[in-house]
Amino acid sequence: MKRLRTTEVQAHVGARVFVQGWLHSLRQLGGVSFLVVRDGWSLLQCVTENAAELAELGEVGVESVIGVTGTVVAEAQAPGGVELHDLHVEVLTPVTEVPPIALNKRKITAHVNTILDHAVVTNRHPARRAILRLSAGAMAGFRSVLTAQDFTEIQTPKIVASATESGANVYKLGYFGRDAYLAQSPQFYKQIMVGVFERVFEVGPVFRAEPHDTTRHINEYVSLDAEFGFIEDHFTVMAVLRDVLAGIFATLSEQYRAELHLLNVQMPDVPREIPHIHFADAQELIFTLHKTDVRGEPDLSPQDERWLGAWAKQEFGSDFLFVTGYPTRKRPFYTYPNPERPTFTNSFDLIFRGTELVTGGQRLHRYPDYLAALAQARLPLEPFASYLEAFKYGMPPHGGFAIGLERLLMGLTGVPNIKLATTFPRDINRLEP
Amino acid sequence: MKRLRTTEVQAHVGARVFVQGWLHSLRQLGGVSFLVVRDGWSLLQCVTENAAELAELGEVGVESVIGVTGTVVAEAQAPGGVELHDLHVEVLTPVTEVPPIALNKRKITAHVNTILDHAVVTNRHPARRAILRLSAGAMAGFRSVLTAQDFTEIQTPKIVASATESGANVYKLGYFGRDAYLAQSPQFYKQIMVGVFERVFEVGPVFRAEPHDTTRHINEYVSLDAEFGFIEDHFTVMAVLRDVLAGIFATLSEQYRAELHLLNVQMPDVPREIPHIHFADAQELIFTLHKTDVRGEPDLSPQDERWLGAWAKQEFGSDFLFVTGYPTRKRPFYTYPNPERPTFTNSFDLIFRGTELVTGGQRLHRYPDYLAALAQARLPLEPFASYLEAFKYGMPPHGGFAIGLERLLMGLTGVPNIKLATTFPRDINRLEP
Repeated sequence: MKRLRTTEVQAHVGARVFVQGWLHSLRQLGGVSFLVVRDGWSLLQCVTENAAELAELGEVGVESVIGVTGTVVAEAQAPGGVELHDLHVEVLTPVTEVPPIALNKRKITAHVNTILDHAVVTNRHPARRAILRLSAGAMAGFRSVLTAQDFTEIQTPKIVASATESGANVYKLGYFGRDAYLAQSPQFYKQIMVGVFERVFEVGPVFRAEPHDTTRHINEYVSLDAEFGFIEDHFTVMAVLRDVLAGIFATLSEQYRAELHLLNVQMPDVPREIPHIHFADAQELIFTLHKTDVRGEPDLSPQDERWLGAWAKQEFGSDFLFVTGYPTRKRPFYTYPNPERPTFTNSFDLIFRGTELVTGGQRLHRYPDYLAALAQARLPLEPFASYLEAFKYGMPPHGGFAIGLERLLMGLTGVPNIKLATTFPRDINRLEP
Repeated sequence: MKRLRTTEVQAHVGARVFVQGWLHSLRQLGGVSFLVVRDGWSLLQCVTENAAELAELGEVGVESVIGVTGTVVAEAQAPGGVELHDLHVEVLTPVTEVPPIALNKRKITAHVNTILDHAVVTNRHPARRAILRLSAGAMAGFRSVLTAQDFTEIQTPKIVASATESGANVYKLGYFGRDAYLAQSPQFYKQIMVGVFERVFEVGPVFRAEPHDTTRHINEYVSLDAEFGFIEDHFTVMAVLRDVLAGIFATLSEQYRAELHLLNVQMPDVPREIPHIHFADAQELIFTLHKTDVRGEPDLSPQDERWLGAWAKQEFGSDFLFVTGYPTRKRPFYTYPNPERPTFTNSFDLIFRGTELVTGGQRLHRYPDYLAALAQARLPLEPFASYLEAFKYGMPPHGGFAIGLERLLMGLTGVPNIKLATTFPRDINRLEP
């Protein structure tokens, strides 16, 4: 008999069907056995009062891989509204050991380290699985909006010749007798590729050798990068970013309902126009509202971001807030200065629910401006030779942004640690699984 | 005036339009100036007999970024069937240096090293750009077929704790005082994730520290990986792969016509059923046809693959051929042996136009089988502890495959060197750009 997925069984009430999956749970209640099968999509309850129907299971435990044939019966109490009766069970792969966490309890109560140490198995928990599935949906939404706007997908090298963006926090590796580095971002390559396709995006890993262990950082993460040419200024970039976010959340709302429901996710509204505030005004606002004087600081602290996020929510009902015009001295050398206030830049961060989610802005595009910026930053030209070549041969005004995929998932689902928003996180202490 | 793309101008005959892009070429022919603008999509010819209309250009050279306003006139001779008259020209970014290769000649005659050394600029050539655009199309096709078949996209770590698949040819890096490695493939992680989602795919970089410089290898490439559970054997995997390839080529044929035309690509037909031959029979066939005795060799040579590719073309009219049942001793320890002929495996390679394009097969899925296979291969258990944990807790029969994206593009477009099938290749001598 052709195998059905657990999510397909609903449509077959009255029929004999065959499902396969993992033995999610097996309980006895007053002479009745409740067996739940989990496959790659959902759960299906199978019920019998006849112990002989389950005899094939023998002594195998949960997570055994099994096949169940049964008759589909409507049952409002059962997950999915159906269950199987008159069971025939077979064991494909027996399991006898007890899993490191209970995969069949609704809540995961284990310590985060237990979850992560055994991610190979704990990722099977429906709640973990739902988060990881949303991650797939976010990538799909990102790509579909940008593809519809004629962006071309690129894949750029992760092994690079020099630690160009910043010397610190970069992984060094041996490359046939010379030193090489892992890319901290596709920044230079995506800018270069604006010269080829005008509009590009990339979904790929980036590597940050940051020597700390926090709930907001991982050392390898997935960056959703976009870059495009012929912009007016950073507000052109912010408008595209707004559409990208709206597209990501629309994709999730439309195609990932079960996961959002399981995780009890409060979906954000992406306003037609996301509110924005200038960096200097944001610091003034914090002084006014919280009597904390951060004016003159070159960057916002996590506390500042939380305050601003709360303000945007209260003032505009928005989960999102753009902070624009970060000071020149804290932004990378390729950032385009504000022509009217050159100590500030045409850059932005997007704060989502009180945490920085996206960084972006307009970049320099004229070759002489790069030479001047590198000199100003006291950086040598030689490691930037290829990058500079793109500007020597004509680049349009351009800009872009980078969304941290795990940050997005963390903000959306409310998991308390970013390491829970990815399959197999990397941090200063964690290199496995 | 709102900017139009060069590809949108056709629809506006008679109207004044505004385009922006790179000064692709500028020629004078008997008092008439032909200026061609290249934007991210295509080319547009602009024509004038009035030199004053181009005065704004001054002395700037090709690759300058410019804007042109003009009146759209139908002209069968012009690329795209239209050209602009009554020009107004402005310069956004002037360029004065001569590019490292002629971007406005139809053929690239430069040496491959010149092309690669200056990839930052040479990728702008329409022929280079078309190949790279097809690469985006191939990724999109891969994802769309698998998403439609309920595969979930995953992103797995590229920094890993041990050189598990094979000790050789792996890049080592420093990871907070310990050694780590770059992933040679997502093999272990994609198998583990079959335990979570059943059906998974990944598009991402893989790293091979192979110390040679050939036209068929690069040291960092993009792997299109898929893995899924509840298969019968490797033929189930081959059937999905067939659909994936058909979907990739359909995507390209439907959405990338201009690129295929420009590159004069001969699109392959993917047969409803791709012919297949057992490894041992393939060696017999080579002996019969070419009087070369490779019987008993544990693998096929590139020459063997070319012969088999030619045979499949002649015998079945197919650009594709599956070779199944590679010997156990040459396949990784996780390969499922053929139950009837255990010196051969339930594995396959797909030969495309005489070159190996895909490797795949059925994997072991029972925990005791892994313990036995690792013992047989004299491999220690400890580095595989997390991997083994997935099997300890129940895995279904499963298998998958990996397509090399650049190999696919090379086979499709016929470029003589795989390094020309990617944006910025890495080889033993090349770490830049």
